[in-house]
Amino acid sequence: MQKPKNKPKAFIFDVFGTLVDWRTGVATVAQKAFKEKSITYDPFKFAELWRDEYKPAMERIRSGKRGYISLDILHRENLERVLEKTGLSNHFTSTERDTLNHAWEQLPPWSDVPDNLSKLRKHGFIAPCSNGSIALMMRLARFANLPWDAILGAEIAKNYKPELQVYKAACQALGLSPEDVMMVAAHNDDLFAAREAGLQTGFFPRKTEHGPNQTIDLEAESDWEFCGKDMHSLLTFLEQY
Amino acid sequence: MQKPKNKPKAFIFDVFGTLVDWRTGVATVAQKAFKEKSITYDPFKFAELWRDEYKPAMERIRSGKRGYISLDILHRENLERVLEKTGLSNHFTSTERDTLNHAWEQLPPWSDVPDNLSKLRKHGFIAPCSNGSIALMMRLARFANLPWDAILGAEIAKNYKPELQVYKAACQALGLSPEDVMMVAAHNDDLFAAREAGLQTGFFPRKTEHGPNQTIDLEAESDWEFCGKDMHSLLTFLEQY
Repeated sequence: MQKPKNKPKAFIFDVFGTLVDWRTGVATVAQKAFKEKSITYDPFKFAELWRDEYKPAMERIRSGKRGYISLDILHRENLERVLEKTGLSNHFTSTERDTLNHAWEQLPPWSDVPDNLSKLRKHGFIAPCSNGSIALMMRLARFANLPWDAILGAEIAKNYKPELQVYKAACQALGLSPEDVMMVAAHNDDLFAAREAGLQTGFFPRKTEHGPNQTIDLEAESDWEFCGKDMHSLLTFLEQY
Repeated sequence: MQKPKNKPKAFIFDVFGTLVDWRTGVATVAQKAFKEKSITYDPFKFAELWRDEYKPAMERIRSGKRGYISLDILHRENLERVLEKTGLSNHFTSTERDTLNHAWEQLPPWSDVPDNLSKLRKHGFIAPCSNGSIALMMRLARFANLPWDAILGAEIAKNYKPELQVYKAACQALGLSPEDVMMVAAHNDDLFAAREAGLQTGFFPRKTEHGPNQTIDLEAESDWEFCGKDMHSLLTFLEQY
């Protein structure tokens, strides 16, 4: 791990996967809904199928085929596809689908997050740089106890990561140069883009984000300014300054 | 005071004047800078002249004569005019002017604000709906201890209050209907616009915002959904639900 030239003045975070366990969170909400209807479908499989629709849905916006639409609406559209695919469409009314869509606001933080994120505030500003909307991130922050200074990300930029504009817009909103901002993520592709936009980068893995058989993002794929095992190691890293 | 039909789910706030004392804050920073240079100019008068440039500068943007530019830049431009007007131009280098411009991030909260704003969070989401930028509001939140859920306002809408789009964009970012959001301000004109945009409105006066001889906004000028004497009375009002 190298020591960066200048200590970051702000830390912006990927959220889904890096700070919160979307797979367990969505599965928990789905399981509750399934139980009420005596549905036996595997809720973890359901969460994974829903998440699989995430990147293609954003890609239509990133490629310019569609104008910016918030992730809440994309999640709701994707839910329709997943209910079709799983043969569960006839079990849920439109209102019940709206309720199920709020699963993405009820994702548990990984155990090292709440306490260490609070402590990180003494080192600089902290904000999400997620593809989630302000409305979603704000509700998730209350649920998962994430004490943000501001909510940045896709909605500020009206585009989706890994488009460079999203990282640049976050720095501009912070009033800082990209070199004074560190993007922190458990996903190498997010960091490759952030580095291209001029930001510092920080990585720790989340080895069960996709379940017990995860094969991607198990380790750093470049010489990120910070590489460690979790949020606590990021704090330890910053204390060397 | 009437009881609104539905309890607000979010409260968005005017900041300069309503939550923080800009006149004292700017005068304090100016006084320190003046002292270092043995300048005897009245720092409160200086703060008032600087603030006088605020509305005309935004008006050029609201009228479409100029694209959206953050308030930080407008404040910096306005500082040039005020230094000219007061004959102090030759005392400050460009770097010193940049430093002086950060005065707007160092404004003390009125005494009833920090504690009661924290308590308000149990009644709903809280966010600024100010003409200040995200960068400015974020730094001011740290200085004045304002525990926001998100930072909304001019920068989200790329326009300035009292353009209705600013209030509407805040509600949209919150994921709420305007009727579920209360705009809180010590300024009647802010609330007339918020009401026109469909929001609920809350008022309490700040009788010394403009100094001891203030003549405006000493009382409510309409039947705002909430009218009280300060932030504490807003909390008491909400506890009747």
